[in-house]
Amino acid sequence: MSQGSQAAPVNPGLVFDMMQAHQRTAALKTAIDLDVFTAVGAGPCDAASIARHAKSSERGIRILCDFLVINGVLAKEDGKYRHTPTSAAFLDPRSPACMASVAQFLSAPALLEPFARLTDVVRDGRTTLAGDGTVEPDNPVWVLFAENMAPMTGPLAGPLAAVALEGIRLDGHEGPVRVLDIAAGHGLYGIEVAKQYSQAQVTGLDWAAVLQVALRNAEKAGVKDRYTMLPGSAFDVEFGGPYDVVLLTNFLHHFDKPTNVGLLKKVRAALKPGGRAATLEFVPNEDRVSPPMSAAFAMTMLASTADGDAYTLSELSAMYAEAGFKGVKAHSIPALPQTIVVGTA
Amino acid sequence: MSQGSQAAPVNPGLVFDMMQAHQRTAALKTAIDLDVFTAVGAGPCDAASIARHAKSSERGIRILCDFLVINGVLAKEDGKYRHTPTSAAFLDPRSPACMASVAQFLSAPALLEPFARLTDVVRDGRTTLAGDGTVEPDNPVWVLFAENMAPMTGPLAGPLAAVALEGIRLDGHEGPVRVLDIAAGHGLYGIEVAKQYSQAQVTGLDWAAVLQVALRNAEKAGVKDRYTMLPGSAFDVEFGGPYDVVLLTNFLHHFDKPTNVGLLKKVRAALKPGGRAATLEFVPNEDRVSPPMSAAFAMTMLASTADGDAYTLSELSAMYAEAGFKGVKAHSIPALPQTIVVGTA
Repeated sequence: MSQGSQAAPVNPGLVFDMMQAHQRTAALKTAIDLDVFTAVGAGPCDAASIARHAKSSERGIRILCDFLVINGVLAKEDGKYRHTPTSAAFLDPRSPACMASVAQFLSAPALLEPFARLTDVVRDGRTTLAGDGTVEPDNPVWVLFAENMAPMTGPLAGPLAAVALEGIRLDGHEGPVRVLDIAAGHGLYGIEVAKQYSQAQVTGLDWAAVLQVALRNAEKAGVKDRYTMLPGSAFDVEFGGPYDVVLLTNFLHHFDKPTNVGLLKKVRAALKPGGRAATLEFVPNEDRVSPPMSAAFAMTMLASTADGDAYTLSELSAMYAEAGFKGVKAHSIPALPQTIVVGTA
Repeated sequence: MSQGSQAAPVNPGLVFDMMQAHQRTAALKTAIDLDVFTAVGAGPCDAASIARHAKSSERGIRILCDFLVINGVLAKEDGKYRHTPTSAAFLDPRSPACMASVAQFLSAPALLEPFARLTDVVRDGRTTLAGDGTVEPDNPVWVLFAENMAPMTGPLAGPLAAVALEGIRLDGHEGPVRVLDIAAGHGLYGIEVAKQYSQAQVTGLDWAAVLQVALRNAEKAGVKDRYTMLPGSAFDVEFGGPYDVVLLTNFLHHFDKPTNVGLLKKVRAALKPGGRAATLEFVPNEDRVSPPMSAAFAMTMLASTADGDAYTLSELSAMYAEAGFKGVKAHSIPALPQTIVVGTA
């Protein structure tokens, strides 16, 4: 099995482009910060009009917008800029799927700083952040996550909640079900379960400051009366229970395998027999270099944690099995880099 | 005329990828700094072997190398890493075309810092660097340029020198010719003229510290006895002359049009009648968004200068014409983002 472009011709542009790729991140962040995508969304417009909206220089806006066109997140026609389908859907603040806030989280110092010292990171094999990096207790980066990463849940929460509830529905279960949402963050995965199942009682577990964001989201979704907060570390607090469903979204990738097996054992002990643990993860193929977005996520874990990784399905299945789970199954989500992996207690 | 991907389907991955593009620059720089491409060039090898060579952790090297595969600058087969044709040619230090040193120049603080403040740059329409940015007198960034950017001249110097000498050869000229290389940098363009024409006398003009690098290169090329240094600013020093050829490589893009017209008039005055001024430039099409690498160069000029730009051919031709040049012609170089533009005095 071979990956990489052996058949591709030599391309110095690929190397030059990679050396300058940081410019793309900066340009997109600047366009978001200057509200360029709102101006363009109001109708095709020239650099001067956008510059007025953005309270910016025309030279700066013209070069910035041309750069966005080159990178596929604007189009240009007869000197006027307009949205591409992608920028209209994911960068115009008027779109319900707008991901602009995600750039705020991804440009947090905790996520950027290790890349300024990546040679040290690779040499030492762990983050240059203090302690265990982003998983240090009460790390404020998770409040930023909770406040900004909601747009990433859009196409994921529905399928995840459906998979998590599937066992209960197959059982013909009636009456209340109890759901534990570990590392709840914005809370939107657990809240989606509450929306899909009117008798679901959801317990959100995360740092106390993070859960304030989840609680606000539960209130907005009209499920606050079925939402309970369990502040603290997933490794330290008593889970209570027993639960019908435990959600573990984007959590296992921060830790090494033994730590995950220990946590999964604790999760299994808190589940009713037949209850389900559902993880949402970036799951690369066994080659670890495809599909690109899932596989590339390992770099973020190298930079920001001591031991995390993007685990393959065989690795995740082995962790589930070692923790005593049965019937481990993967559900991929079309066109998205994340996979739902579910195990039965 | 329309640019951009109107017909393309919506793609949230494109946006997410752009938000994280800075990771690519950091990963490539780290791989160069840890000499990963030398280890891979010695033969297909696993992460543990590369880690020993790089005096690095196996976890760090495995995730780094997988990331390089995902980005097309390594390949992976049965768990072992090997070069792609592109990484073998442009990243293995044993290749004569290796571009690794280019990363040292491109990661100079003067080139990176404005991207950390790009919102201010766009708002103000000019670099956040002090004064006029990279074109401030004796800016040490040009010594770094001269020391590291030689690999970029490989496929360019030959065609540029040939175009510059074409008029002389068509004339059936015999005897010495005088060449002025403005903003000589590493000096390799002028040196190539000296190599192609044994009676060429080359004067390199640049900051004094930069010219020391050019002189070393002239010595290595065996043309030191035909190389003269003219230290200072192209706008201030007397050019002397008259010259048969003036080279203006990667220089005009740092300045606004009136400044360039003034300089081109000074160049024309220093040329013999029928002498040629040859510029090497990133020249986008009139739409300013294609081809991608030439057009994207405007962003580097926005970030690092007060008034520079990637000028279109019609703009460059107009500047030449206003300075009194005749017969302005463009020579594109296949597969490369730079264009030779030549005018006759």
